[in-house]
Amino acid sequence: MLSLEQISQLAEATPSKIVLLVLDGLGGLPRPETGLTELETARTPNLDRLAREGICGMAEPVGVGITPGSAPGHLALFGYDPERFSVGRGALAALGIDLALEKGDLAARGNFCTLDDSGMITDRRAGRISTEKCFELCQLLTGMSIDGTGVLVSPVKEHRFVAVFRGDNLSSELGDSDPQHEGVPPRAVVPRTTQAARAAHVANEFIARAREKLAGHHPANMVLLRGFAHCPDFPTMTEVFKLRPAAIASYPMYRGLAKVVGMDILPTGPTISDGLSALAQHYDSYDFFFVHVKETDMAGEDGDFDRKVKIIEDVDVALPALIGLRPDVIVVASDHSTPALLKGHSWHPVPVLIHSRWCRRDAVEEFGESACARGGLGRFPAVQIMPLALANARKLGKFGA
Amino acid sequence: MLSLEQISQLAEATPSKIVLLVLDGLGGLPRPETGLTELETARTPNLDRLAREGICGMAEPVGVGITPGSAPGHLALFGYDPERFSVGRGALAALGIDLALEKGDLAARGNFCTLDDSGMITDRRAGRISTEKCFELCQLLTGMSIDGTGVLVSPVKEHRFVAVFRGDNLSSELGDSDPQHEGVPPRAVVPRTTQAARAAHVANEFIARAREKLAGHHPANMVLLRGFAHCPDFPTMTEVFKLRPAAIASYPMYRGLAKVVGMDILPTGPTISDGLSALAQHYDSYDFFFVHVKETDMAGEDGDFDRKVKIIEDVDVALPALIGLRPDVIVVASDHSTPALLKGHSWHPVPVLIHSRWCRRDAVEEFGESACARGGLGRFPAVQIMPLALANARKLGKFGA
Repeated sequence: MLSLEQISQLAEATPSKIVLLVLDGLGGLPRPETGLTELETARTPNLDRLAREGICGMAEPVGVGITPGSAPGHLALFGYDPERFSVGRGALAALGIDLALEKGDLAARGNFCTLDDSGMITDRRAGRISTEKCFELCQLLTGMSIDGTGVLVSPVKEHRFVAVFRGDNLSSELGDSDPQHEGVPPRAVVPRTTQAARAAHVANEFIARAREKLAGHHPANMVLLRGFAHCPDFPTMTEVFKLRPAAIASYPMYRGLAKVVGMDILPTGPTISDGLSALAQHYDSYDFFFVHVKETDMAGEDGDFDRKVKIIEDVDVALPALIGLRPDVIVVASDHSTPALLKGHSWHPVPVLIHSRWCRRDAVEEFGESACARGGLGRFPAVQIMPLALANARKLGKFGA
Repeated sequence: MLSLEQISQLAEATPSKIVLLVLDGLGGLPRPETGLTELETARTPNLDRLAREGICGMAEPVGVGITPGSAPGHLALFGYDPERFSVGRGALAALGIDLALEKGDLAARGNFCTLDDSGMITDRRAGRISTEKCFELCQLLTGMSIDGTGVLVSPVKEHRFVAVFRGDNLSSELGDSDPQHEGVPPRAVVPRTTQAARAAHVANEFIARAREKLAGHHPANMVLLRGFAHCPDFPTMTEVFKLRPAAIASYPMYRGLAKVVGMDILPTGPTISDGLSALAQHYDSYDFFFVHVKETDMAGEDGDFDRKVKIIEDVDVALPALIGLRPDVIVVASDHSTPALLKGHSWHPVPVLIHSRWCRRDAVEEFGESACARGGLGRFPAVQIMPLALANARKLGKFGA
């Protein structure tokens, strides 16, 4: 498999257009009564037409048997090997609340927690304080300056927040202050390398000052930090694929992941129709569009088979607005499976279709897991979807002479 | 996937015979009116019989979405990972005109070009001088000796030639003298490493002397060099696969690639029947034969769907001469697709059949892209064809105990 650097040397800018439609958590498992998955149960004449005219297969986002998180699942779809390009927990949390991270920023996930008088943790979640209270306490903590390093503290939900340290020379090689247990004191943040001494000092100083400021705010009288990670510094899709890429996603996490690979973020509303309106509106300004649908995954996580079916059908109904733009390449794919029967992400490969004039169509007649498993693409790593999309868009030159 | 070194440790010399028939650029795309590719359109009772009795699949020469050049496409078929074993442009040009390169030789592609009085390039191709003129000018330049390094200059076609530097200590880490633009002077050949200083000196001295010798030969009054590369130094098929291999190819490039992996080159004529006569004649002296058919690719490059169909049918008609020899293993494959609809190499995987007593046949009834896509081999890297052929020829021992 060629590396991103090797593919980069073959990539050429052309006017052709690619649309990557990601139905989050699309892959499913069959309902025992019917033997059909969510996707196979849904009435999807438009997706079926794309499958019939295109070439299909089953993609493995990370590897056989491996259940992907959202970040590796999406990075694979964007053409970035998720084993090599990883987004740390702290950075992912920051992306998840639309924080604009800068190069060198160090991010950590934070909890408000409760300490007793002897300094032992009695509740790692501070009684799950309200999100409103979390906002208020973050206001109290944000904006510190520690030895020239700024600290931004942003609320997430209930007791959870994100801390971003912005300054020079901040290594992410830090242990957690969160011991993951109650009945023990918080840990000091320990540097794992000598280079990380400064970052550890700044983090510990932030924690000490936070403890002072929170003294009167029992049960939220302390903070715990974990998952220190840098803002990812990946080559952009423009650098590696010579694309002008844009993302249409109504959930912050996916906008964040798109930003990490250099996509422009287009404003959009919550529905697939909003997304496809945004696509039409900006169609002339970009040559690659990532369109994200979150609700399939949410229905899967909720174990709601029928709602997942309905959402897939809603997407299918909206699809003519995409097909009508006549992109040179349409890819319909997913970042991972979220079978309603499992109520969570799973390791099952995801159905993929690639529709283009040059795709060499296979015999697949409908878009579904069983049909795609017999498709011309076979079972293949999701990271190969991008090279294939670029090839079909005639954006990839010859390897060797 | 085992490395060449690992496979080498399993390979055993046996009397069984393998014939690898390569139809260059065989893979195609369906003609819209019929939905059938070139191969699917052709009447091929013999290939179909081999497919029916054998096992089929679709091979990816380099990787999903990657369009291979001839060299990586063939190296993959010979069992050499084309990412690891690459043939530089200059060396490939030398192979393309049947030059016998020696170990350590440094080859470059050359152009005769036109300089004006101020030393600017006014025509990178010297008005596309005749091939006859090119022969004459190469005679003028060949045979120089520069600090103990001999320089051989051989014509290719029109303004194009190959320069081979033969001597000690010639690094290929050199920049081009060809700036790829007109209106600028030629570049000096720049060493990319300190070790390359000597090679750069020799190349620049050659260029300076060539300029003097060409002074009276306007418009061909200067040379441009690019793509400096060593003669590849690969382990031979005898070393790694314990084979006695021979090549039957009427085009120099493919003889050259075969020589690079240590095949003996058998004399042959231009037709497939000539090739199969050569095969019969030398059948007892070797246990591996690479038989190359170039014309399928040429018809594809010309966009001539019907001619490609006809050539495939001609091969099929000649095939009984091969089948009648009853090789233990027959492989029919291709180095890449060249769909007539695209008039060039493409990224589409290539149909492959492996015919042997031990192949575990699949349900494929005819040799074609759609049928092979449903074959027992699935979609797989072309570099795995050789281990599979060796295994079917019972030439590969057990891995581990």
